[in-house]
Amino acid sequence: MKTVSILGSTGSIGCSTVDLLLQDPASFKTIALVGGKNVKKLAEQAIALHAQYAVIADEQFLPELKKLLAGYNTKVMGGRQAVVEAAGIPVDWTMAAITGAIGLEPTMAAVKNGKYVALANKEALVSAGDVMLKAVNAAGATLLPVDSEHNAIFQSMADQQYRSIEKLILTASGGPFRKTSFEDMKKVTLQQALKHPTWTMGAKITIDSASMFNKGLEIIEAARLFSVTEEQIDVLIHPQSIIHSMVQYTDGSTIAQLGSPDMRIPIAHTLTWPKRMHTNVARLNLTEVAKLEFEAPDDIRFPALRLSREALRAGKCSPTILSAANEVAVDAFLKEQIGFLDIPESVEAVMQKLGAPQANNLEEVIYWDQEARRHAEEWIKNRYKI
Amino acid sequence: MKTVSILGSTGSIGCSTVDLLLQDPASFKTIALVGGKNVKKLAEQAIALHAQYAVIADEQFLPELKKLLAGYNTKVMGGRQAVVEAAGIPVDWTMAAITGAIGLEPTMAAVKNGKYVALANKEALVSAGDVMLKAVNAAGATLLPVDSEHNAIFQSMADQQYRSIEKLILTASGGPFRKTSFEDMKKVTLQQALKHPTWTMGAKITIDSASMFNKGLEIIEAARLFSVTEEQIDVLIHPQSIIHSMVQYTDGSTIAQLGSPDMRIPIAHTLTWPKRMHTNVARLNLTEVAKLEFEAPDDIRFPALRLSREALRAGKCSPTILSAANEVAVDAFLKEQIGFLDIPESVEAVMQKLGAPQANNLEEVIYWDQEARRHAEEWIKNRYKI
Repeated sequence: MKTVSILGSTGSIGCSTVDLLLQDPASFKTIALVGGKNVKKLAEQAIALHAQYAVIADEQFLPELKKLLAGYNTKVMGGRQAVVEAAGIPVDWTMAAITGAIGLEPTMAAVKNGKYVALANKEALVSAGDVMLKAVNAAGATLLPVDSEHNAIFQSMADQQYRSIEKLILTASGGPFRKTSFEDMKKVTLQQALKHPTWTMGAKITIDSASMFNKGLEIIEAARLFSVTEEQIDVLIHPQSIIHSMVQYTDGSTIAQLGSPDMRIPIAHTLTWPKRMHTNVARLNLTEVAKLEFEAPDDIRFPALRLSREALRAGKCSPTILSAANEVAVDAFLKEQIGFLDIPESVEAVMQKLGAPQANNLEEVIYWDQEARRHAEEWIKNRYKI
Repeated sequence: MKTVSILGSTGSIGCSTVDLLLQDPASFKTIALVGGKNVKKLAEQAIALHAQYAVIADEQFLPELKKLLAGYNTKVMGGRQAVVEAAGIPVDWTMAAITGAIGLEPTMAAVKNGKYVALANKEALVSAGDVMLKAVNAAGATLLPVDSEHNAIFQSMADQQYRSIEKLILTASGGPFRKTSFEDMKKVTLQQALKHPTWTMGAKITIDSASMFNKGLEIIEAARLFSVTEEQIDVLIHPQSIIHSMVQYTDGSTIAQLGSPDMRIPIAHTLTWPKRMHTNVARLNLTEVAKLEFEAPDDIRFPALRLSREALRAGKCSPTILSAANEVAVDAFLKEQIGFLDIPESVEAVMQKLGAPQANNLEEVIYWDQEARRHAEEWIKNRYKI
């Protein structure tokens, strides 16, 4: 039996993970479930999985969680420190799926256990970059990418011929504004941006998909995970989201992973890697899909791609700053405080202001993360006088 | 330096192999080149590769070969026995690319060396089946599939999770008659059948692609190579021939190999496996391709698929008989002695006549191969009174 913990268990990735664990309960023993605010869902999951710990990040919900889990064997905790503690309990496999920089500390705590960490929090890797990879190496941990694109690339490297990799080809659905003119993109509403054409995901990543910051962060994530240069990473628009990404080799072969747009597929791959489990997800039926389309991305309408490549080339804390400023902008857009195109504009302004400062440890990374947030908030205040 | 021999070096696959060897002359030492009749090409290749042996199967061309290679260090031989002898010279890697049952004996000689045998002659594996696989195992040889479909499947199994394979999905261009009505298929000419939409190949395999016997033989080949059942093999029409084939796993992931339709890609994969070499073949550009299409195959217009599945299920020498009868029919069609739809009709007649007799060794396989040929010729004589 494999011991597992889920950081971010009530989110979209967390729920998919719980679903997979329930498909094969004899193979997994759940240690800790960590949720943000959704206390009912967390209690349900803890009961279904007989979890040893249920931890709610937002402490105000702790009394409710206690009530819901009264009479069960699950230990209940609350607050940010409890989250990091729970993440630090040694397990064979951790799902790190707390979105945003807030997931950084618990992810680092999980990494320090030295086992398998399924990484769904791309911001952690983008933001903490070198610091995180050093911790991974020092602890002898193994990062298993959960993002469907990076998981596809990981699967497409199964023959381990890393030195023969010519290019990584990240596919992108193109989001809801793939064919929207630049003029119209200025006026898009929150509702329009939240309508992803192929995937059902959390709000942050859905907006990031619409702005293509998601793909930009993925370029940075891919460079970190697979030790390739910015020039080796191509982005290819593929509206059907069936080919999840590809690797092109020096001999002319390209290997791809395909599947229905269901996050349980990459999660399952990390859950039993290097073996493969059985899942009941819908199998890909290409006769039904009938057609896969491809086109080049538009760097003009989607400045996120250019900005992310710039951050990756600049290195140091430039990706930290890009990711933090984007989080603030997305948050403001979700609150309908700013327009859609303000997202890349504010990120670019903050990037230009702060440059690419060096960070030697997690504290320094967090410092630059905070600085970027402060500047992003200021930019928004100045622009909208709020 | 890796020692290599090419059986069938003047054919389409052989020429592609020679081209790859010339791309990296420092890594390979050519021992034997075996050609059929094209003595000029064989001499050219022997000179370019400094081959130790040049062997022409058709003995009448031996004097010409001797003349062309006078003054070079290449030893010259001719005749069928010399072909088998040359195939038996121990080398690290052999390309077995002599089309049809005539390639069976030299392929078996190469297998007995116990090294890597790149198998481009699908008829050998279809025809000799169990006998050949027993010889491979006994000699500790490794078969590396060259057929673009089987090579794609082989590449898509790089994580070696064989027990988690749910399905092999063989793609097929659909050939020149993908959209031709059954009525019109009765009247198609040799010229029409020789026009393959995506691949440039030898005459036999091009006709087999038009009739879909090629895909049928590939179903049988896949079952042998990858130890799967007939039910585990799907055929998917994919006119662009970009996805060369796929493997579907129990966790819902599908892995595929893609590339330009250039046989040098799968050949290169076998040439340096498990490593990957560098080639100068055109890289896949999906933005240019723009669209990949898929549809279900039509078993009614292409009885070859049904007949091949029947032969695979019947086992024993039923595939031998199917393959041999098909070779005779294709030969007659190439000589414009029979119509296009006579190919499956004659094959089915011979299959019904001979059933699925047991063969315990290569001699018995060859006996049933000959019997099938005799009956196929008889069927043609009776039908056309020739």
